[in-house]
Amino acid sequence: MTHHQLVNLIKQKQSFLCVGLDTDISKIPPHLLKEKDPVFSFNKAIVDATFQYAVAYKPNLAFYEALGTKGWESLGKTVDYIRSLNQPIFLIADAKRGDIGNTSAMYAKTFFETMDFDAVTLSPYMGYDTVAPFLEYHNKWSILLALTSNTSADDFQFFENGKGKKLYEKVLETSLTWKGNEQLMYVVGATKAAALADIRKIIPNHFLLIPGLGVQGGNLQEVAKCGLNKQCGLFINSSRGIIYASDKTDFARAAAQKAKEIQKEMAEILKKIFVF
Amino acid sequence: MTHHQLVNLIKQKQSFLCVGLDTDISKIPPHLLKEKDPVFSFNKAIVDATFQYAVAYKPNLAFYEALGTKGWESLGKTVDYIRSLNQPIFLIADAKRGDIGNTSAMYAKTFFETMDFDAVTLSPYMGYDTVAPFLEYHNKWSILLALTSNTSADDFQFFENGKGKKLYEKVLETSLTWKGNEQLMYVVGATKAAALADIRKIIPNHFLLIPGLGVQGGNLQEVAKCGLNKQCGLFINSSRGIIYASDKTDFARAAAQKAKEIQKEMAEILKKIFVF
Repeated sequence: MTHHQLVNLIKQKQSFLCVGLDTDISKIPPHLLKEKDPVFSFNKAIVDATFQYAVAYKPNLAFYEALGTKGWESLGKTVDYIRSLNQPIFLIADAKRGDIGNTSAMYAKTFFETMDFDAVTLSPYMGYDTVAPFLEYHNKWSILLALTSNTSADDFQFFENGKGKKLYEKVLETSLTWKGNEQLMYVVGATKAAALADIRKIIPNHFLLIPGLGVQGGNLQEVAKCGLNKQCGLFINSSRGIIYASDKTDFARAAAQKAKEIQKEMAEILKKIFVF
Repeated sequence: MTHHQLVNLIKQKQSFLCVGLDTDISKIPPHLLKEKDPVFSFNKAIVDATFQYAVAYKPNLAFYEALGTKGWESLGKTVDYIRSLNQPIFLIADAKRGDIGNTSAMYAKTFFETMDFDAVTLSPYMGYDTVAPFLEYHNKWSILLALTSNTSADDFQFFENGKGKKLYEKVLETSLTWKGNEQLMYVVGATKAAALADIRKIIPNHFLLIPGLGVQGGNLQEVAKCGLNKQCGLFINSSRGIIYASDKTDFARAAAQKAKEIQKEMAEILKKIFVF
């Protein structure tokens, strides 16, 4: 998906909502456990219920890997199902990979060839040559961890050089010099909204993937205020707040309701930059 | 596996060799492609041929994921096969994971419960709470990326505070303060041998996993000189140099030969610290 297509999708759906498919078999409604592939059945129902409100889905690989080959099957079926809808949607593999070149090339193959994802989240710790193989895929995106939403993010991301520059700022600046940097996006936690305005000074135009809304305490209005750019430039992810809105048979309807509420709030925000 | 068991294993085999199972279906000998599960057949032959010379195996997850569910099956079978030998061996999942707490808990479950690995490689970028769920498994190990072997390692790992402390040193120092730090090991590239002596000042007792021998240019003698401690404290990994020593039907014999050569060199080195 190109940048242009992505912005059009956001305009069309009046939404920049990403639904995180952190599907935990121990948390899905018990009646689904009778199904042949409960994780896929859950995902399919969530996708059907939220599709009109979301521009992106983000399966979190850990939740699928924990189930072994069966989990990878559920993941593959989920990706195939979303693609079978034949509607534009941005699909993010939340994998946080990062390894030496020949290994990264295999990961890129996994997410961009074996499975039809549009983007993958990557850890920047090992530097450019760990990201390069992903950037070789045109119209595919690499989403670098910059400033994450978790409590211990400051263990290293705030490590500072003598001149007030923090590691996450160094990651932003250095990655902008990389060949293919126009295919980069960045992860910035919703819990770090205060830093967003400064981040926007370094990367005014790039898309940000913002996790941490809801359960982790992030606030949509605050994030939009500091992070929105003229092309929106944001995906805001909600996982648990949507997919586990109810643990009963009405889970899909509850998820739709939550997604709809967020989408409505997003439509209001988008009126500041787009004419609908 | 406990630290004590690990050191005993090294003494018993007079080796600190880790064989990297970066099994690439496009590089294995063509005659294996007729097998039902070529990747597993290759791994089984490599393990059988090298088992007496190695103390550890390190499947690189990327190479299995790239094959989708089939790859995960091959990986699972490889782990099960090694465990079925009923001999002590240290099994490392080279996964370089790292995510927020609830996600890391799922990854820990994947590698320590769904599969019977002893250790997993982790990226430190997101800090303590991304590592904590792994440290909760007793006698299991977390191997943190510190100073990696790739060219771009210096993009961020050498990012320095005003007082000459580099990011990778900060990672070492900070992680030593974590609860469960006695279950930590660290990745230090063989191509960075010069830094090893300084690293040993910060972590004199911890085990280091050293990739980059052979194809990537690392040198065993140099690494041992700077990195060996009184309990050995090293795993030296060789992947391509061993598993692709031949691309013909004699690949297993060639791998055994390479592993044996390295083991012999290692036995000489170990005589400096152990009495055999």
